[in-house]
Amino acid sequence: MTRFSSAAKNGLTPAALEALLREVGAARYHNRHPLHHKMVSGALSRVQLQAWALNRYCYQAIIPRKDAMILARAEDPGFRAEWRKRIEDHDGTNGWDGGIARWVKLATGLGLDEAMVKSERLALPATRFAVGAYLSFCTERSLLEAVASSLTELFSPVIIGERVPAMLAKYDYVTEDILAYFKPRPVQASRDAEFALAYVLKYADSPRKQQAVIDALVFKCDLLWSMLDALEHAYGEDGHIPPGAFDPGAA
Amino acid sequence: MTRFSSAAKNGLTPAALEALLREVGAARYHNRHPLHHKMVSGALSRVQLQAWALNRYCYQAIIPRKDAMILARAEDPGFRAEWRKRIEDHDGTNGWDGGIARWVKLATGLGLDEAMVKSERLALPATRFAVGAYLSFCTERSLLEAVASSLTELFSPVIIGERVPAMLAKYDYVTEDILAYFKPRPVQASRDAEFALAYVLKYADSPRKQQAVIDALVFKCDLLWSMLDALEHAYGEDGHIPPGAFDPGAA
Repeated sequence: MTRFSSAAKNGLTPAALEALLREVGAARYHNRHPLHHKMVSGALSRVQLQAWALNRYCYQAIIPRKDAMILARAEDPGFRAEWRKRIEDHDGTNGWDGGIARWVKLATGLGLDEAMVKSERLALPATRFAVGAYLSFCTERSLLEAVASSLTELFSPVIIGERVPAMLAKYDYVTEDILAYFKPRPVQASRDAEFALAYVLKYADSPRKQQAVIDALVFKCDLLWSMLDALEHAYGEDGHIPPGAFDPGAA
Repeated sequence: MTRFSSAAKNGLTPAALEALLREVGAARYHNRHPLHHKMVSGALSRVQLQAWALNRYCYQAIIPRKDAMILARAEDPGFRAEWRKRIEDHDGTNGWDGGIARWVKLATGLGLDEAMVKSERLALPATRFAVGAYLSFCTERSLLEAVASSLTELFSPVIIGERVPAMLAKYDYVTEDILAYFKPRPVQASRDAEFALAYVLKYADSPRKQQAVIDALVFKCDLLWSMLDALEHAYGEDGHIPPGAFDPGAA
């Protein structure tokens, strides 16, 4: 945070701001997290993958709600029409034929019960707090900051490009069908990130706003990182599963 | 959570509800967390104690705000007058002669910089998300649930009674003066918890409301627990400090 705080003092050109945003991602996006490295190296157990899918469901489930909050705060119909595509991608036409449904398929494909996953009842409290913080952020901060917090999508095609082939190669029970969620994501994420980046570069037109969008991206990277930290602490080698959370070893 | 979910189905007497709330505490309060055990056994390093004090400051700092939110939602002047004492305890007469100031003293007594602690800049993101969830809970849930979430104070005299003598005995650099925060807390917490418990037992007069107050206490226990989980993951033996957080080993 310190590192990125001082850089924007004198106001940046759009190109310099974009470079700084990409630098935040290079330093802090969760493709650098040890749990991601374990995942793509094939080192995770089935239970660890289940815990990941189960907790990540809570994140997937909040996305259309945070996007609806952004929609609710946007005055420009053109902006809303563009941003609405995100909600459509995740909710589909009937709520259960879009990205959220495909994430459920991933979770059940790994052997989890659908109703349990959807209830979010056994997710880690830390996951719930992180996901809640995302919705609060998009509710309470400026529209510009809410948009900027979505810019982790700039980096998601890379992590998906690492994750999908590695999971198919390293875990014999993982199939293309189970990973169907990821298939349309790189195209969708690139389209969305391009739009959000252009918006941020246009409207972050003062040092204060530039600092705010950098901080928003740092916040979002921290959030994704904290979700993997919580998973690793709970389900790592000498795991410390908190009371009440998913525990396949329990009675 | 499951365990406590079924018990309230038929509606409980106030005594049975109180017993169930105390059972939640016995099962889930953070005096059962491994990090608490390490703390009272003298096993923590000075840096680990610093990280605890630094992160816990964020929690201390939010308390008067969540209490003000409860005040803002309470219609009964008598309730407000009683609840207001909590804000006075933490903010003091001028903002910096109450509990928050005493927590700063604890942190600086352990060797941390006052401005750094107050800025909350180097706290773990997971701490910030948990603390934010507490304020959101007291904002968005019913007044009854907000009050019930404070009932962890029923159990705080016990943890303080373990923590203070153990810290004085086991860490030669910890003095009574550094731990001054805790001195008035058992009396204050008992007074506050008694009032909140009586309120909850009076107004949780349906199975639905009884379940809601149980869930509120579970939520709050989960929150305190998750803060210690995050500390242990970041600053434990093979610590994984997330990017940007307090890192005394860094340059």
